[in-house]
Amino acid sequence: MPSTHATLVNHQVRLASRPVGQATVENWQFTEEPLADLNDGELLIQVLALSLDPAMRGWMNEGKSYIPPVGIGEVMRAGGIGRVIASRNPAFAVGDVVSGTPGVQEYWRVAADQLKRSGLAKIDLRVGSVTQWLNVLGMPGMTGYFGLMDVGQPQAGETVVVSGAAGAVGQTVGQLAKVKGCKVVGIAGGAAKCEWVVKELGFDACIDYKAAAPEGVQRWDAVREGLKQHCADGVDVYFDNVGGDILDAVLARLKRKARIVICGAISQYNNTGAMVGPKNYMSLLVNRARMEGIVVFDYADRYHLAIAEMAGYLKDGRMKSKEDVVEGGVAAFPATLNKLFNGENFGKLVLKVAD
Amino acid sequence: MPSTHATLVNHQVRLASRPVGQATVENWQFTEEPLADLNDGELLIQVLALSLDPAMRGWMNEGKSYIPPVGIGEVMRAGGIGRVIASRNPAFAVGDVVSGTPGVQEYWRVAADQLKRSGLAKIDLRVGSVTQWLNVLGMPGMTGYFGLMDVGQPQAGETVVVSGAAGAVGQTVGQLAKVKGCKVVGIAGGAAKCEWVVKELGFDACIDYKAAAPEGVQRWDAVREGLKQHCADGVDVYFDNVGGDILDAVLARLKRKARIVICGAISQYNNTGAMVGPKNYMSLLVNRARMEGIVVFDYADRYHLAIAEMAGYLKDGRMKSKEDVVEGGVAAFPATLNKLFNGENFGKLVLKVAD
Repeated sequence: MPSTHATLVNHQVRLASRPVGQATVENWQFTEEPLADLNDGELLIQVLALSLDPAMRGWMNEGKSYIPPVGIGEVMRAGGIGRVIASRNPAFAVGDVVSGTPGVQEYWRVAADQLKRSGLAKIDLRVGSVTQWLNVLGMPGMTGYFGLMDVGQPQAGETVVVSGAAGAVGQTVGQLAKVKGCKVVGIAGGAAKCEWVVKELGFDACIDYKAAAPEGVQRWDAVREGLKQHCADGVDVYFDNVGGDILDAVLARLKRKARIVICGAISQYNNTGAMVGPKNYMSLLVNRARMEGIVVFDYADRYHLAIAEMAGYLKDGRMKSKEDVVEGGVAAFPATLNKLFNGENFGKLVLKVAD
Repeated sequence: MPSTHATLVNHQVRLASRPVGQATVENWQFTEEPLADLNDGELLIQVLALSLDPAMRGWMNEGKSYIPPVGIGEVMRAGGIGRVIASRNPAFAVGDVVSGTPGVQEYWRVAADQLKRSGLAKIDLRVGSVTQWLNVLGMPGMTGYFGLMDVGQPQAGETVVVSGAAGAVGQTVGQLAKVKGCKVVGIAGGAAKCEWVVKELGFDACIDYKAAAPEGVQRWDAVREGLKQHCADGVDVYFDNVGGDILDAVLARLKRKARIVICGAISQYNNTGAMVGPKNYMSLLVNRARMEGIVVFDYADRYHLAIAEMAGYLKDGRMKSKEDVVEGGVAAFPATLNKLFNGENFGKLVLKVAD
């Protein structure tokens, strides 16, 4: 096929240095390069939208984790949705919409031998919109689904608490737990987010950890009071996205045989000091409770089942999906990422790259 | 029957006040009282030996836990073995040897309606000695057995690490894991304990956390190095009796799908400051690992099975049992208890009360 893309320029955001604390503009390098012709078996994908996730902060650090760190000088890793604009691979046609891990760039060129490990898959926009495919039907949705169902194992009638309740994972977890017949209490920062998860998503209650605490009361004591009020009989399942003081507050209210799903610790990711561990962890002993980590990639062979189930809930209105879509293309990536850690995003944070 | 015991005097140790940090002699009150005649259905038991356990420190604190605190002025709670010396209950005869929770006193009078909830049970000294019935065949043994088997779920060929390796629970856990075909690495304080668990109990290795670290190396870095050396492929099961820095060191070496059994945190029990949580707990996420608490009482209906199994191992030599028996009667209780927290005991700590 003709190389109609030969005149296209690809703008990229690369990791220039490893941040200490919150990332700054100095940690990024902006590059551009012309797109060369495709080889046999290759695909060229125009990136439509990128997923911005708390986990990205971890990928920027040196050291062993569940996934290798992004190397200095490499295009920053990011999940996203794109459209095939050129194909020398018979399995993909121009116009196909795909999800995968394009990284923070405008165009993603995928070699034949990369196709498998890139996790690239065609998606159907009749099932969900581009942004829904990055939210409830994407990685955050899969994380929430398998973390809740496989690790949390909620039973109808149990009390489920989720932090980061208005975030991408949190909204999936809370709504899914409601579908499964649980009482659901969210924890989120700000009255608007709390009101939204209760009124729009149907959570039973939401504790605003940023709310002004009554005079003489510490903020975390106020969170503890909120838990006491809304989870009078204790917490059966806690889905933790934040760590820190909120994890400790929930630990202090566990029920017998409770399950804590460790999905993230956003309160700690930009710490420059030592990580703070849950000082109430002995509540696990007192309550014969369990704390367990989840990494979504382990469930890749069952994504299609979770997608089918939750697409049904989106269709019949039992689940909703909210995305915070930021315009501005890849150049806006550094500033947009930091919204996550300032608690500024409201819903799944998505960076729009092209129409 | 004649009340031959009417002239006996019962010496007791009661909780006088709640300790801050390590208990001192001021926290105890020594009392004596004559033994009144038995009522119908009652038993009088002469205490032979008491079990001294780290958990006792927790029972002395105010506040909700897995068991109510000992009240101020009450006889200190303690498990033990005794001999029936008078009985007005047809289910027990003079001379029967029983295990139960007599408390720190010389004689234990059990009312008919207390019999059930006192956990009192006849034991057979042909199966094990008095001190073995407080060790591998007693609460520590049951804790080790069910914590390891039900929560840790070791598979043959896996690597099991246990802290407090020379202690009552630790020796059970390590030897049982060997019987089940695991590689076993202990962590203990002092060369003598480490040598004993390797040479006598058959552990594959033992890390001495009190050993002088090489120049320029912190003690906990030395523990980490020991783990790296002896658990080169990582840790599948960690049975934690100590918490603190050792828990963090093991967290840093977990294998995928590892299980941590939270049985105790002796390093923290006398803390007067805030409890220190495991700052490496996000290793649970990275490794899809699990941390779970165990309380032995939950397994009461299966004690007999564990006792039968482990009595077999004691008989055929696959398990050994070491007790640190202190003479001196109940008056020696306060000083003896503190041996546990100074790491001075070697084997299950038992206070002998009568022959």
